[in-house]
Parts: sequence; structure tokens; C-alpha cells
Amino acid sequence: MTEVCGTSRIVGFRFSLYPMADEFVDIILSTLQRVDTTKVWVKTDDISTVIRGKMEHVFDVAKAIYLIAANTEKHVVLNGTFSIGCPGDLDGDVYMSEDDVRMNEDRVKNIHIEAPTQFALYPMNNENYMQIIADVVDIAKQQNTFTGGIHYASRLDGDAHDVFTTLEHAFNYTQEKVKHVTMTVNISANSPSRKKK
Amino acid sequence: MTEVCGTSRIVGFRFSLYPMADEFVDIILSTLQRVDTTKVWVKTDDISTVIRGKMEHVFDVAKAIYLIAANTEKHVVLNGTFSIGCPGDLDGDVYMSEDDVRMNEDRVKNIHIEAPTQFALYPMNNENYMQIIADVVDIAKQQNTFTGGIHYASRLDGDAHDVFTTLEHAFNYTQEKVKHVTMTVNISANSPSRKKK
Repeated sequence: MTEVCGTSRIVGFRFSLYPMADEFVDIILSTLQRVDTTKVWVKTDDISTVIRGKMEHVFDVAKAIYLIAANTEKHVVLNGTFSIGCPGDLDGDVYMSEDDVRMNEDRVKNIHIEAPTQFALYPMNNENYMQIIADVVDIAKQQNTFTGGIHYASRLDGDAHDVFTTLEHAFNYTQEKVKHVTMTVNISANSPSRKKK
Repeated sequence: MTEVCGTSRIVGFRFSLYPMADEFVDIILSTLQRVDTTKVWVKTDDISTVIRGKMEHVFDVAKAIYLIAANTEKHVVLNGTFSIGCPGDLDGDVYMSEDDVRMNEDRVKNIHIEAPTQFALYPMNNENYMQIIADVVDIAKQQNTFTGGIHYASRLDGDAHDVFTTLEHAFNYTQEKVKHVTMTVNISANSPSRKKK
């Protein structure tokens, strides 16, 4: 394999937060203001935001953004792609020396919201990628968050903390086996088209 | 390579349409009602919709959904993943016998909207995938829609018809070289955070 990718194990998450509400700007800005992003590199443009850093901090910030936005009780969606193994450059590598203490866990641990999720895993340049995807489905089944395979994706349901745990375990499991991995996630909250319990 | 995937060349697009507006339900439903989906297999759940069929019809329907929703002048985003080569099952294969006439082109050809787009291409199980991505960037450059590489994605700008043409050419080029290909797209419209010309 040609080493066209970088060698850093920095994790990235390029995402958009979509509040289905007239005050979407306020919801996005107030959410981002309330999340501690000191341990990740952040860059926002007019379409999406990318955060980069150690895996635990990228997932910590992603979960906090979702939970704080969802806690508005508006229909919001966090949609994005986690990536590792092909940063293309070294921006943000300084963040790889942060410690392991998650900055947002305390402020969101008491927010409990159902997080219907569709995700897809793309282990690149690996002939066993379908088996790895099957392994990840087994991880989700063991964690009781897996609720079905659908065209081009798998479905998770449950409390947001459990869903994010599964996503992080799935991603971590895969990146231990494959150098370049991406994982798309579409995490909904408060959708009116979802059946009430 | 183990033939774990199907053999059909049916194209799929799993997407969500996000109107950043209180009347998001009306915008989504009225948009879907105004798009001709007779030549694609459609299934909607509470998170996303999947359409499947011949490549030209999947892209025709995707573009029409984007344009009709964007024409409301609300900030809307079409976000999803195109896929070919791993359908997992044969649902909708009957749609592969449709003719090539695009059902929506006439009704949307006069809608002209700027379509700022971020996309990423994932040619699976191929050691030359980075070169294929570079080739696709060259296609976008030749079509004058490429406006830059960003972390984990490439950026396109321009009239929506031109952007969708590039996306379809990029996807088609790749699927001629690689069996299983996915391509994520995040296509914005009417964003207030985008600088006015």
C-alpha cells in the first residue's frame, strides 16, 4: 500500500447539526457555546464543522453537542462522518498530547434522550471489510442498541449515552484492525414522525 | 474477493432532507409529493429515505428533491450517501428495467440555485482508492465545480445542475473501476451563514 495517508492516529468528525426550527441559528450557536471544545481542534464553515483530536475527546464533544441541542426539545439531527487514518495533513496534531479526561461528560451525563441512529462503517482498502462490519453489528447486539439492518446502514436505538458508547466501540474496534476507517452517523432527536412509546 | 455483495448494479441513495424551519414537515412532504418517483424504489423511515434504481433515475430524483425544497427559499440541506455494489438483497431490482428518460428534468430545469456541497468518495476494497479520489477531483476541476479540498471531503460550488452533474460523473467514473462504492454528499441551500455574492 502506498503511504499516501498520514501516520497520525488523530480522529476527525465532520458534522452538521440540523435543528428543524426557525431559530436554527440560535440553537446551533448556543449549543456550540455550551460545549467544552478545549481538547479538540475545531473548524467551522458554512456547511459543516470538523473537530479533530484524540478519539475520546472527539466522541465526548460529539455526544455533548447532540445532547445539548436535543435538550431544547426541538427536532434536531446530528449528521456526520468520523474518520481516522487519512488526515491528509497534520493540522491539530498538537491535540494528540491532551490527557484522557473527558471535558463534557459531567455536564451531559444527566441528560437522557432517545437517540434513533443510522450508521455505516467504511473500513478502507481491506478485503475483509464485510466481516469487520458484521463484527461491529455483533458489538451493537451485545450492547442492546442494535435494532436492525437496513439498506446501506445499520440502525441503533436507545438512550443517547448507550448509542454513543456503541458508536465509539464500533469505531475503535475497526480502527485497531484497519488503518483508514470512516463511519457515517445520522442521529435524530425528538422527531415527530417517530412513534411515541 | 469473496462475493458477499450482490451482483446487481442497482444504485441506492439513502438521504435525509433537513429544512431549518418550523414547518419542516410540510416542506418535506410537499417536496416529496412534487417529485416523480415512479422509476425508483422508495422506502422512508423516521430518520431517512432510501431510493434505489438505475443511476440516472436515482440522481434525477435526488436533484429534484433538492431543487424543489430549496425553491421554498428556506435554508434546507440534502444529506445522504449514494451506494452501488453491495445492495445486500434484491429489493427493487425490477426497477433496473426502466427506460432512461429522466422523469423530473423538465420540471426542475429552470430552477437555478447555488448548491454549496461537500462530498466524500469511498471506493471499497481497492488499494488504488486514493488515486481514484484524485481522478474524481480532476473531473470536478474540469467541470469548474471544484472549489477546494477540506478535511475528509471535497468542496463543490455552483449552480445545482452543474454540481449534480459532477456528482453523477464522479460516482459513475468510480463505479466503472470499483465494484462497491459509496459517496457521501452534504448539499446546502439558502444558508444565512454563507457570504452573499
